Amino acid sequence: MKELVERIIEDGKVLPEGILMVDSFLNHQVDMGLMKRIGEEFASRFAYSKPEKVLTIESSGIAPAGMCALALSVPLIIMKKQSSLTTGGSRYAARVRSFTKGQEYGLSISRKYISKGDRVLFIDDFLAMGEAALGAADIIKQAEACLLGIGIVIEKSFQPGRMKLDKLGVPVVSLARISRMDERSIEFIE
Amino acid sequence: MKELVERIIEDGKVLPEGILMVDSFLNHQVDMGLMKRIGEEFASRFAYSKPEKVLTIESSGIAPAGMCALALSVPLIIMKKQSSLTTGGSRYAARVRSFTKGQEYGLSISRKYISKGDRVLFIDDFLAMGEAALGAADIIKQAEACLLGIGIVIEKSFQPGRMKLDKLGVPVVSLARISRMDERSIEFIE
Repeated sequence: MKELVERIIEDGKVLPEGILMVDSFLNHQVDMGLMKRIGEEFASRFAYSKPEKVLTIESSGIAPAGMCALALSVPLIIMKKQSSLTTGGSRYAARVRSFTKGQEYGLSISRKYISKGDRVLFIDDFLAMGEAALGAADIIKQAEACLLGIGIVIEKSFQPGRMKLDKLGVPVVSLARISRMDERSIEFIE
Repeated sequence: MKELVERIIEDGKVLPEGILMVDSFLNHQVDMGLMKRIGEEFASRFAYSKPEKVLTIESSGIAPAGMCALALSVPLIIMKKQSSLTTGGSRYAARVRSFTKGQEYGLSISRKYISKGDRVLFIDDFLAMGEAALGAADIIKQAEACLLGIGIVIEKSFQPGRMKLDKLGVPVVSLARISRMDERSIEFIE
């Protein structure tokens, strides 16, 4: 997505430790006009598969996933993160390792909001190691729902996440794919 | 807002401990069409004051506040919650006591995204004890920005939050005001 790539080049900052900061338009300060166009792009790329629900993870996934849900006229489901994994009969849950933060967290969703056979799209802001998306896919599987595809705003293609997600056998659509980055420049896969 | 009040009556559940569950359309599963109409309602109520930024708190505030920012064509700023209060030169921060969760948390925002004189609207999902909104108002004051008004999706008018916010001397617009609720019924202020 040309507008997104240009925005990353203009406003993204690569920190010495290899983290891409996009907090001026995606994570902290959010350009909702851009989020709307991102959501509509995901909606148009996945409309053929007739999604019934859009699933995301709090909190950076909410804006782009919400705009996609709005464009598709389907509900958005926000998976909750918690440091302690609350299990129990009323929730599906998975454990996710965050490499950026160097810690584990629990991901969960009420059984009320995901059911057997539901046609679900998963949308998230970043794909790096793929752990969050795999956690979401695990929860969708537990619920016997159907994962139709994965939409990612920014993919770090030089990290192993994309390869792991490709093994799920569903379409993975990333709107910006970074092949290489350092403090001086960011390069993209066309 | 008639549609919101009807939705609370239809889908809201009051738990024995006095908590209003609206996780079927606002907190966990989110009706983005309703969020769009809520955001547009806030935008039309506050447009006269010419907001330059919409501020909210992760993660339940993001959907309604984001739709308001979109309607006003201004940036959304998401305040971060954290259990440990990270202070330091680069962030404004406040401490907030959560009565629902019985614990304190830190609220913070990067100094890059709020500046002296900024015309800021604060939007949140719930108003009960008012602590989160007061924390946000404190941060806006630290930044010497200008708080134009507060927009709340659901106000529990029988709790002291509204009274505390009225003392800030800015308009507080709540789209649904609950005067009384128990497990059998929910009553609203017209």
